[in-house]
Amino acid sequence: MRPITTANILAIGTELLTPYRTDTNSLYLTARLNELGIDVSAKRVIGDDVGDLERALAQALQQTDLVITSGGLGPTSDDVTREAVSSVLGLPMAEDPALVELLRERFARRGTSMPEINRRQAMVPHGAVVLPNSRGSAPGLLIAQGEKLVLLLPGPPRELEPMFESSVRDRLAERTSGRRLRRRVVKIAGQPESKVDEIAAPVYEPWARLPQPISTTILASPGQVELHVSARGTDVAALDAQLAAAVTALCAALGDSVFSTDGRALEVVVGDALRGRGLTLAVAESCTGGLVAGRLTDVPGSSACVVGGVVAYANDVKRDLLDVPADVLARHGAVSEPVAAAMAVGVRRALHADVGVAVTGIAGPDGGTAEKPVGTVCFSVAGPGDQLTTVTRMVPGDRGLIRQWSVLVALDLVRRALR
Amino acid sequence: MRPITTANILAIGTELLTPYRTDTNSLYLTARLNELGIDVSAKRVIGDDVGDLERALAQALQQTDLVITSGGLGPTSDDVTREAVSSVLGLPMAEDPALVELLRERFARRGTSMPEINRRQAMVPHGAVVLPNSRGSAPGLLIAQGEKLVLLLPGPPRELEPMFESSVRDRLAERTSGRRLRRRVVKIAGQPESKVDEIAAPVYEPWARLPQPISTTILASPGQVELHVSARGTDVAALDAQLAAAVTALCAALGDSVFSTDGRALEVVVGDALRGRGLTLAVAESCTGGLVAGRLTDVPGSSACVVGGVVAYANDVKRDLLDVPADVLARHGAVSEPVAAAMAVGVRRALHADVGVAVTGIAGPDGGTAEKPVGTVCFSVAGPGDQLTTVTRMVPGDRGLIRQWSVLVALDLVRRALR
Repeated sequence: MRPITTANILAIGTELLTPYRTDTNSLYLTARLNELGIDVSAKRVIGDDVGDLERALAQALQQTDLVITSGGLGPTSDDVTREAVSSVLGLPMAEDPALVELLRERFARRGTSMPEINRRQAMVPHGAVVLPNSRGSAPGLLIAQGEKLVLLLPGPPRELEPMFESSVRDRLAERTSGRRLRRRVVKIAGQPESKVDEIAAPVYEPWARLPQPISTTILASPGQVELHVSARGTDVAALDAQLAAAVTALCAALGDSVFSTDGRALEVVVGDALRGRGLTLAVAESCTGGLVAGRLTDVPGSSACVVGGVVAYANDVKRDLLDVPADVLARHGAVSEPVAAAMAVGVRRALHADVGVAVTGIAGPDGGTAEKPVGTVCFSVAGPGDQLTTVTRMVPGDRGLIRQWSVLVALDLVRRALR
Repeated sequence: MRPITTANILAIGTELLTPYRTDTNSLYLTARLNELGIDVSAKRVIGDDVGDLERALAQALQQTDLVITSGGLGPTSDDVTREAVSSVLGLPMAEDPALVELLRERFARRGTSMPEINRRQAMVPHGAVVLPNSRGSAPGLLIAQGEKLVLLLPGPPRELEPMFESSVRDRLAERTSGRRLRRRVVKIAGQPESKVDEIAAPVYEPWARLPQPISTTILASPGQVELHVSARGTDVAALDAQLAAAVTALCAALGDSVFSTDGRALEVVVGDALRGRGLTLAVAESCTGGLVAGRLTDVPGSSACVVGGVVAYANDVKRDLLDVPADVLARHGAVSEPVAAAMAVGVRRALHADVGVAVTGIAGPDGGTAEKPVGTVCFSVAGPGDQLTTVTRMVPGDRGLIRQWSVLVALDLVRRALR
């Protein structure tokens, strides 16, 4: 049988054709399919209209060997995915008594009886494999027709994702060529994408021309750049060894600006480094207004190393809570390296922490001057011990981007201070 | 000529078929099309493959009267949208000398000469209207064929959106029936979707059966519920009057839990209320770890009313910086109404603000007990004047959701205190 190498994804639901909802399942599915060596060649969003859906299914089946739908498996008359698939594939549906029983039990466990309408969810096209749903009432369906496969998954991500992991991945793997995609990610903070690429491109460009090529993709978000390296082949161990060597080469070129090669986010890396050394951190923020502390405390268990912080938006707060001397504020201005350093030292002392980090800058849109334009941000880290590092960066973008960038720069300075 | 009532949107670009990038242009375009009385009946994402694109274009043109593409208008050989459209519509392309001149001028203004490859961007299918691009080199194209319209827009949102506003909207409006969609949004914070709908449904359900019906959609995000009411018709003033009455009726039913009917976010409403009364705010956060202050300071100009805050993650910080008495902490625990109240009073005093708001709770995943399970969050607002309000809420979801919910509840308590 011909192996499956490409897929189409159909997201079904009229709400996905409004300005308010977007299909995110296809991003998850694409990542999982890519790992199995399957590319996604097209994606569609279709409303709850059986005619539109039949047309889209028929077209997708002509163009690819695997069609995955998400949504439209509920009990109401809006949910027409089963009917459309049955019609396009010419497979009559019948009620599956075992499935009716499972649905009844599901409702009974919640102390109610099953509404009759839910029997629709027990209708199964002839020959379909029923995929159990651990988180909802809609079962998935997997239908083989000749060399083609049609996979029907429920719409809610919290139902779709565990169903894929437990019932779909292994079944799909059997139908692939055995080629797999393996991927590693190298993460860099606080550097512009162009600068990272200038350093990395001479390293990764030759890899695309290897007999066993490595693909490299650069993804930039505010304050962070990711280099994704991936390779395809049947020998997973050999691919992983090849990618490990690629990651090592990129790290050698990029040096200490790499903060993670194992998927961890910067706030997790910082938290792990603090815990590893038994140190605590306090945060003093002006222009980021709490976002540095907010990011650090996103991580479960961060209370073990993050004691807290001061959002010193007003100068009085910098003076009263952080002991920034009034004359330093007056002489250098709130956005200055001496003030950043005094904030870092002050928050460390006031909160009895081992390390203090401070951010003060001009996020805009107002407040910029010729000397200190919008985007001027000063950072300082006090500790551990006698260390004191203070830097000024020109951060790009509008208010929102400047604040997000600054969070990453601040966390990266803490990471560097902890090495 | 038949008016245009439905559209298909095609997002073009192989990067949109990876796990990392998603098409967001279609959300913007859908909102604008809906306002013109045009529904989106399907969306697709296609890679940079001329065959795939030709098939998708032909299918979309069969199904609808307006096809909008985004992307694939760049100068490189990957950019095949012009070629595919020319081929499917049978319209030969020719270089537009005026467009070549515009491109040359664009490069000259940046001090470089135009690469020859950019001449591709001056190729125009016969009869197409060229749409100027104020932010990039790729012009848009609008092509009428019989009763159908094909609209080619550039991929970057910062180019697509101004092009739509300046060159597309009015031209499309001429081809519609004159029916428009008008919309109003009622926003509620800190209430579960089910509770809002229980109150609102008896009000809005009859509207769907009016001779001139009003549609209602509920959108829930963590800590916030939005009721979108919309109506379609040719008399915009009458629609707006009808929706204004609908908003008034919903506000009467939902009472003071409505925080906005004019599109403003809660942090903007709170900032406006503070400025309107000439008051300042300080924030004390435990489980939200800086996110309340971070949200308030997202708003440009917030330094006029937000003086700052204390992230009191550790109990020592609650005691040392916020003067929460050690015996209150010991007796009631850090997550308790007495501690929340002491934090609100303490941060207000320490930061010399008119109003203090405090959040302390158990965001999980650890730290819950039988008495105070994960999701128990206490809030307090001190001020203005002698006011002191303290509440406890059971907030749903995981750590991330509990923190997001809590931000909205805290901001909403401040809003209520300022009325």
